[in-house]
Amino acid sequence: MNINKLEMNCIIYTIGDELLMGQTIDTNSAFIAQKLNPIGIKIMERRSIADDRKAILDAIAYGMQNHNVIIFTGGLGPTKDDITKKTIADFFNVPLIRHDKTFEHVKAFFEKRNRPFLDVNHYQADVPSNCEVLFNKAGTAPGMWIEHQGAILISLPGVPFEMEYLMEYEVIPRLKKRSKTPALIYSYIQTAGIGESFLAKNIEFIEEALPDYIKLSYLPNPYRVNLRLSTTQEYENDMLSFKNQMIQELGDAVYGESTNTIFEHFFNFLDHRKWLVSFAESCTGGFLVNEMTNISGASRILSESYVVYSEASKMDKLGVAKEIIDAHTVYSAECAEAMAIACLEKSKSHIAIASTGILEATKDQKPFAFIAIAIQGKVVSRKVDLFYGRNKNKETVAVVAIFEALKWFKKDF
Amino acid sequence: MNINKLEMNCIIYTIGDELLMGQTIDTNSAFIAQKLNPIGIKIMERRSIADDRKAILDAIAYGMQNHNVIIFTGGLGPTKDDITKKTIADFFNVPLIRHDKTFEHVKAFFEKRNRPFLDVNHYQADVPSNCEVLFNKAGTAPGMWIEHQGAILISLPGVPFEMEYLMEYEVIPRLKKRSKTPALIYSYIQTAGIGESFLAKNIEFIEEALPDYIKLSYLPNPYRVNLRLSTTQEYENDMLSFKNQMIQELGDAVYGESTNTIFEHFFNFLDHRKWLVSFAESCTGGFLVNEMTNISGASRILSESYVVYSEASKMDKLGVAKEIIDAHTVYSAECAEAMAIACLEKSKSHIAIASTGILEATKDQKPFAFIAIAIQGKVVSRKVDLFYGRNKNKETVAVVAIFEALKWFKKDF
Repeated sequence: MNINKLEMNCIIYTIGDELLMGQTIDTNSAFIAQKLNPIGIKIMERRSIADDRKAILDAIAYGMQNHNVIIFTGGLGPTKDDITKKTIADFFNVPLIRHDKTFEHVKAFFEKRNRPFLDVNHYQADVPSNCEVLFNKAGTAPGMWIEHQGAILISLPGVPFEMEYLMEYEVIPRLKKRSKTPALIYSYIQTAGIGESFLAKNIEFIEEALPDYIKLSYLPNPYRVNLRLSTTQEYENDMLSFKNQMIQELGDAVYGESTNTIFEHFFNFLDHRKWLVSFAESCTGGFLVNEMTNISGASRILSESYVVYSEASKMDKLGVAKEIIDAHTVYSAECAEAMAIACLEKSKSHIAIASTGILEATKDQKPFAFIAIAIQGKVVSRKVDLFYGRNKNKETVAVVAIFEALKWFKKDF
Repeated sequence: MNINKLEMNCIIYTIGDELLMGQTIDTNSAFIAQKLNPIGIKIMERRSIADDRKAILDAIAYGMQNHNVIIFTGGLGPTKDDITKKTIADFFNVPLIRHDKTFEHVKAFFEKRNRPFLDVNHYQADVPSNCEVLFNKAGTAPGMWIEHQGAILISLPGVPFEMEYLMEYEVIPRLKKRSKTPALIYSYIQTAGIGESFLAKNIEFIEEALPDYIKLSYLPNPYRVNLRLSTTQEYENDMLSFKNQMIQELGDAVYGESTNTIFEHFFNFLDHRKWLVSFAESCTGGFLVNEMTNISGASRILSESYVVYSEASKMDKLGVAKEIIDAHTVYSAECAEAMAIACLEKSKSHIAIASTGILEATKDQKPFAFIAIAIQGKVVSRKVDLFYGRNKNKETVAVVAIFEALKWFKKDF
């Protein structure tokens, strides 16, 4: 089993009828790719195949012939429709054998949860006899590592947090030792408020000067476009110099230079200054506060937050004056500003952000919204034009609000 | 261009380095599959390939040889790294020609948004001369439909809402006319609170009696497992009879029989009775209210909602008695119940749901939470044991709360 260091190129197979039927969205291969890229392993192909003996046999054969790292996820569960393990054993013409440590682990796993340890669960501890077991502390299905004729076949469970655990603690450390390809280095410019083609036009003269060994990609999202530069270690300084030119050119549109979300940037700003935020959300309906509480440590920057969806709640619960709503409607800059100021007072937070608007088009009305930000008695607001469906519009309003807050922070705080 | 009705089998290609690098999660192929299955088109394979001339040429060749519906998404943007269109034209050895209607549309699109119409955008109106244009009202990149030697090649933009628009209004109607495969019929049983293997054990005797032409799949999610039965029209009654046996067997664990989310079930219950809901969210931090406001029509069932993250906000803003927190801590059934009751009173809603707990493990403490539901002065609560990371735990608490509310509804309302 002594294989020298390899130029590794990888194919990822996700197994499951539910993937082909579109019942499940494949987030696993993105996670795997993100872990492999930095250690210099290139993903050449990603394929989803059926939970079907022939499809799996073909996939192993194709993978072993065309690539030298073959990663499978899925099809390792305890139910009858999961046949990956048996098929892998058959491909290599080896039996399934009981892995004692896994058996004890699975048993303990069920005991801990007061759930019965069924016969069908015993089978989870069986693995092909030619594999090294990747011990799965996060669940019951063991991962498998098989080396054969210069290639490495890795089989992981499809449950995302189990697969993630095994990638992180078992697969990456092993692959790192074996890969001889230089790792790629990435660098990011995060922008908002400029469309993709206008952005491209702005930096066209820099992009055209990029040498072959530096790559640039555009990653668009509602209201945001991320630029990703990549190269190998030796050209890092070159890349950073091009990056700085681009940042110079893009000015205020740049809100970050990492893979953090815009909400994480906002969190870091608040956390650094020990500031509290509260939201008075109408059209964003909890999107903003939910994004903040997705971040570990949220309790340091958030004490309370409000969703004021109805007109009555904006007045009765938040304290927006009836006169403002009567004069301007709830879908106005004036109402958004009054919401933000009322929220600031009520919550005693350092910053308050409000949203109000219409997310879905009607016969007479295109969707639009207003956001307002209040800090220390001062308030700003702006209109947000909306072009998508309900949920993308909701996200857009939230992103515009945070982007405007980040710009204000940079300028004044 | 006269092709007879086809037994259609399909390969979906998603194009883009960002997919292989894991920067973007592929939601497009799930959407496409969900649209194709009901009209009897089977997805045999899904592959992600690089935004690279050779990879795209190979993909077209493989697709045309092995399948008769080949769907590409992605690589149609205005920037230099998008080469799908040019490569398709080259494969068929035809020129790119300007599509006038698209040109006018793209121009108007930019004018409407007050954005400059750049040279690079002109290129969006160019298409291979052998294609039928799928007119893209949702964006600027046209879709393409090419028929060649008994196969259909469809190229769609990668931006999800543009692809979705084209699938719905241009692709599906055309494919429907051409497919002669009988459509598959799906039927669902949605369960919560039972692990996958225990669920399988419960219905093992029914599953073993299933004939070959009825398929059963398990689709697990935090705290939930969906069962999907499928068959063709002629066996629909058979399938429904097996389904009813399973529902009988699973009893209270069943909360629905559709593809609606558990939150949509909850929404429908409220909407049907013209009830308002409010949340007093601590550990779920806005997850619940955000799920409800993702649903079109949310304003009919929601007037206001609270995130009370800090101990102080639970007392000062919601009105939980200090004595309760002093006696039981905020992480208690008592506190959750007091939060739900206070929320009911404050909001004047018909139902209030509260959450409080610890989402992340510490050295001394495993994560856990309490949820409480208050309806018309009555309140129930329960503990939720948590086994995942922060965000899955957050989702679990939210799902348990809604599941318990649905059970109560069924019993008493």
